Amino acid sequence: MASHPQKDGAPPPFGRRPPRPPCVLLLRHPLQFSLFNRPLPDNFHFLKPWESPLPLDDFLSSDNACSAEAILTSGKVPVTADMLRRLPEVRLVVTTSAGLNHIDLAECRRRGIAIANAGGAYSEDVADLAVGLLIDVLRKVSASDRYVRRGLWSSEGEFALGSKLGGKRVGIVGLGSIGLKVAKRLEAFGCAISYQSRKKKPHASYAFYSNVYELAANCDALVICCCLNEQTHHMINREVLLALGKDGVIVNIGRGSIIDEKEMVQLLVQGELGGAGLDVFENEPKVPEELLALDNVVLSPHTAAFTPESFSDLCDLVIGNLEAFFSNKPLLSPVLDE
Amino acid sequence: MASHPQKDGAPPPFGRRPPRPPCVLLLRHPLQFSLFNRPLPDNFHFLKPWESPLPLDDFLSSDNACSAEAILTSGKVPVTADMLRRLPEVRLVVTTSAGLNHIDLAECRRRGIAIANAGGAYSEDVADLAVGLLIDVLRKVSASDRYVRRGLWSSEGEFALGSKLGGKRVGIVGLGSIGLKVAKRLEAFGCAISYQSRKKKPHASYAFYSNVYELAANCDALVICCCLNEQTHHMINREVLLALGKDGVIVNIGRGSIIDEKEMVQLLVQGELGGAGLDVFENEPKVPEELLALDNVVLSPHTAAFTPESFSDLCDLVIGNLEAFFSNKPLLSPVLDE
Repeated sequence: MASHPQKDGAPPPFGRRPPRPPCVLLLRHPLQFSLFNRPLPDNFHFLKPWESPLPLDDFLSSDNACSAEAILTSGKVPVTADMLRRLPEVRLVVTTSAGLNHIDLAECRRRGIAIANAGGAYSEDVADLAVGLLIDVLRKVSASDRYVRRGLWSSEGEFALGSKLGGKRVGIVGLGSIGLKVAKRLEAFGCAISYQSRKKKPHASYAFYSNVYELAANCDALVICCCLNEQTHHMINREVLLALGKDGVIVNIGRGSIIDEKEMVQLLVQGELGGAGLDVFENEPKVPEELLALDNVVLSPHTAAFTPESFSDLCDLVIGNLEAFFSNKPLLSPVLDE
Repeated sequence: MASHPQKDGAPPPFGRRPPRPPCVLLLRHPLQFSLFNRPLPDNFHFLKPWESPLPLDDFLSSDNACSAEAILTSGKVPVTADMLRRLPEVRLVVTTSAGLNHIDLAECRRRGIAIANAGGAYSEDVADLAVGLLIDVLRKVSASDRYVRRGLWSSEGEFALGSKLGGKRVGIVGLGSIGLKVAKRLEAFGCAISYQSRKKKPHASYAFYSNVYELAANCDALVICCCLNEQTHHMINREVLLALGKDGVIVNIGRGSIIDEKEMVQLLVQGELGGAGLDVFENEPKVPEELLALDNVVLSPHTAAFTPESFSDLCDLVIGNLEAFFSNKPLLSPVLDE
């Protein structure tokens, strides 16, 4: 990972900086700011390609863009090697997302570009929604809400039984900041927690599996909390889902492509997988048509981090990272290679 | 409350019992048994009025019913003073419900009739659903599931922000077995818990309010966990709901009539109350029409206790209570006057 500029003997950014404020390329107006009409700080010069008549590609080649020293991205527009080649002054990428799968990390590393992400600003909210989705699927909350709204309680009688949360063996895939918070919450419900990650976490007392198939075979539910990268892409494949089984439930608040969505949909339709609570999908905002008719799935439009409290924290963090970087201070939420 | 027969000097029931097994009047086939095709135990003689051509009133006056020594009820058919007068041998009422509002407690007390209820068989499941409903209302889980299913994510873009659970001040109305479990779960999410009950609980460390209005005025959400009785009927009135306020959320897993439903509906429609997660209603299975169109409410068809695990525990408990009573042993889940 890129070390902070002042640490590698390069002149500090303020030394290179023209008299005007540091120039930051915005790839999209960050939702977190726009939703609350929160102004962008005026101690930076923000480049806004969407205000230019030029297509993004042409804008990036313009003299204007060339002066960008940092990129602020939301995760919706990728930060590619090609983009970075056109922006030779860039030394920092700040993303408002927790995930990094939209950023060419190898190219950043090669160019010594530092990266800051959302850090833990979303962790609690994402963990809360993960638990909410698990309760919802097991206890059929959304499905029974539909039942009542359609007037079926009066006409058809009692609704179907759900399944008890307490005592369920829940496997956390990726025991990072979010995974730990999901585990802590589910312990309070009497769930038995185990987890899978690349390495055993020395401070976690939960049962560890290095293999996600083994985890699935020993669990009633999986909660996907890891990041998407080459290793985790389609890590939850047909075999893992079959190991979870007919009564097994999968919750995904990571990224859609961690699960082989096509296989998952097929198994849900065939009743080979018990249920799913999904905040993320492979081709957002597209959701596989087959899922829309199923009562054993809960579909959430990638809103796990969508609370005013998270958004406000995130705005503070974004500004804090930019100010720290251009004051030669350590980033507040640096992304470190593992 | 009725003391156990062997304690008041009366002859033990086995002394009075005819040679045939004890006769138990079933007011309705208990759902918990029928759903799993679990047979009723054959060491009791069960009277099943629904198998008789006689209307219930006439059946209760028949010689057959007269021999009933216990009543097993589900909470759907009331146990009235009139019914008890016609069944002079009855010394025990077992209800598969946690609530007792369908039983004439004063008449039972007068007649020395013991009562056993569901005890804690449902507490965990009910607490789980209470938390699930609170997360759902705050984080708009059911509402955003509808949004996705209607195809609006693709056509309309991002869904509305929810509200963070962590840091919320949650007031538990009635800190009994269920209330304590709700509190424990919500602590894991970082909520600040306080409660209202008739008396301060010596072992609870949460802030205590003797007045439910004061509790509401100092909370962001209320979770109704108390039983329905004369004191709690419409205890959550317009003033309490207004004190909870425009951003306040109410969750009810107790009984519908604890809330003044008409006032609640009006305040929800007018935006004077933030949201509601309701498993119970005043006139079940009727749900006020106005609620069906609201996105800030989650409607559940009185299924808080509906899991196979709870139902199986309940069957064990019902049989255990009947066997204990007719063997002169203490009831497993006696209802005690407070």
